Amino acid sequence: MKTCWVELHERRYPIYIGEGLLSAGELLRQHLPKRQVMIVSNPAIADLYLATVQAQLPDKQCDVVLLPEGEAYKTLETLSLIFDELLQHQHHRSTQLVALGGGVIGDMTGFAASCYQRGVSFIQLPTSLLAQVDASVGGKTAVNHPLGKNMIGAFYQPNAVIIDTNTLSTLPPREFQAGLAEVIKHALIRDADFFTWLEQNIDKMIAKEPEALQTTIYHCCQIKAEVVANDEREQGLRAILNFGHTFGHAFEAGLGYGYWLHGEAVAAGMVVAAQLSIALGTLALTDLERIKRLLHRCHLPTEVPATLSMKQCFDLMSLDKKIENDQMRFVLLKSIGDAYISDTVSAEQVRAALRMCGLNRE
Amino acid sequence: MKTCWVELHERRYPIYIGEGLLSAGELLRQHLPKRQVMIVSNPAIADLYLATVQAQLPDKQCDVVLLPEGEAYKTLETLSLIFDELLQHQHHRSTQLVALGGGVIGDMTGFAASCYQRGVSFIQLPTSLLAQVDASVGGKTAVNHPLGKNMIGAFYQPNAVIIDTNTLSTLPPREFQAGLAEVIKHALIRDADFFTWLEQNIDKMIAKEPEALQTTIYHCCQIKAEVVANDEREQGLRAILNFGHTFGHAFEAGLGYGYWLHGEAVAAGMVVAAQLSIALGTLALTDLERIKRLLHRCHLPTEVPATLSMKQCFDLMSLDKKIENDQMRFVLLKSIGDAYISDTVSAEQVRAALRMCGLNRE
Repeated sequence: MKTCWVELHERRYPIYIGEGLLSAGELLRQHLPKRQVMIVSNPAIADLYLATVQAQLPDKQCDVVLLPEGEAYKTLETLSLIFDELLQHQHHRSTQLVALGGGVIGDMTGFAASCYQRGVSFIQLPTSLLAQVDASVGGKTAVNHPLGKNMIGAFYQPNAVIIDTNTLSTLPPREFQAGLAEVIKHALIRDADFFTWLEQNIDKMIAKEPEALQTTIYHCCQIKAEVVANDEREQGLRAILNFGHTFGHAFEAGLGYGYWLHGEAVAAGMVVAAQLSIALGTLALTDLERIKRLLHRCHLPTEVPATLSMKQCFDLMSLDKKIENDQMRFVLLKSIGDAYISDTVSAEQVRAALRMCGLNRE
Repeated sequence: MKTCWVELHERRYPIYIGEGLLSAGELLRQHLPKRQVMIVSNPAIADLYLATVQAQLPDKQCDVVLLPEGEAYKTLETLSLIFDELLQHQHHRSTQLVALGGGVIGDMTGFAASCYQRGVSFIQLPTSLLAQVDASVGGKTAVNHPLGKNMIGAFYQPNAVIIDTNTLSTLPPREFQAGLAEVIKHALIRDADFFTWLEQNIDKMIAKEPEALQTTIYHCCQIKAEVVANDEREQGLRAILNFGHTFGHAFEAGLGYGYWLHGEAVAAGMVVAAQLSIALGTLALTDLERIKRLLHRCHLPTEVPATLSMKQCFDLMSLDKKIENDQMRFVLLKSIGDAYISDTVSAEQVRAALRMCGLNRE
């Protein structure tokens, strides 16, 4: 088991990474010291892992709420189901929520924990690669609104993140690949050596070799923990974690949530952001080629979806959280492993980059 | 104009109290430095004051959302209306929400500000006495759930509270009286001299004499600011602000939100809490008589509503946020001006106090 810490003073918390941690009763109970527990999951994940987790918590009032699956249900309405269950079972302020699932479950459980009785504690048990390398770490919680993704939420940190790498064995291949997009993102924004390591070891990752999995997840968590510790509420540095996301969110929303997985949209978004970095003269064309090659090997999209129009993309991007005071802000690359934030990008440069990546409808 | 500060380090903020402050353009603009503003209000308040406030903000993108009036609409569904409007008008992270109204508007606007894009700034322009002396100060924001009041919310501080005492001239008498319940609460928990002052000046207050209004509101804000600065997230001391509220919330919910005003329920709740304090031997009977007399002079209830049963009250109280780990916690009085928290109250003592206050159905 590897452990890394998110250093946020009195709210610092550990991330544990290892095989079989969902059965590590002592570890779980250490981070769930109180009597009431509410496990939040979805039916598919619950079938696989709920009994294992519940078996570790024999002396608790251990209630369960199962949410419908998928990004399309990441709404205020679904969030209400968690509150209904908490209140029906009389959970007090000292209750503890447990997010057992992927990014959607983690985002909703964390947001529910931040709101219920104005804040109760929660832990993350992420079961998808995307959640393990990204969503479960850093305290960003949210639900979607029909007019924009993650528009309603809170910065709210878990008490612990416990990552059982064995859960990846049951993850559908497409979801595993989508998670690799966030892995590649972490390398791109902050760690050139890790990117090179990925180029050399991506086949081991795709084959889910335990050693490669642990190393990769640990690396991503360390990068993310470091960025978050420097800028918890995204006043500055933390925005680099959104590399590829301004475009990605627009693609995801434009296609309708659930059509492309989040990681797939981010993969295409990263290519557009890299293309834009080239237009601004900061990134070498050879680096773009390396990025696209690695994404291809992970079976991830590297082009803008053909059904989208320029107008749609711009409409959706103008709502993006990362736009301050009507100024478009973009996360770009100086080189592989070195991201920066620019607010001098012109709309014309954005259009050109989108066209270079396959967008051909106005 | 009087000013008092809520001392919360980098989140410290001022409370201004004076006549005509809704027309104090410079003051308003000082606390709304950015371009986008969303005023949240309800139709009745908007009719009276919206034009005045908007006239102070000529250079802003100043949008408005009017919510249906009353505690019964303080729900997640109504909250969505604020998000809809913010997104439809493309409000960014730098937007600023303005709560123009009573406690319900303040609670919902603050909670919306805490969630929108994971947190934007907001100011309070409270127009009811209850909001001016209590709800607008201290950062407690929330909506109700069918199974409990204020069950979903956040601790989230405004950037400023601007109290125009002139707005009290249009407040319906019953609402003004309900606000007096929270005034009396502040005196009871923390300031015996203020309670004596109220006994001597309550008629001036009821007659809305400007000097008496300003003095009273300033005193209440100072008491609340001091308690909140000591314990923002209600880990200890702050709970004394809930004096009368454990019972009050149960009465309010039991009767159906909107039947009794919040302040009316709290008035009856304070009498039960005082009665309980006598049973525990900490409060003198003469003090209970002084409390009831002052509440009577404000035309506030001092008995449990006749339609409620013991079972209903207990069911509703067991969900109250102030109950930790199945232990009932109550805010009680040592004397007028000196509250304390007890977790050694027995259910039988609670039943006896409720019966003493007129509850006669099991």
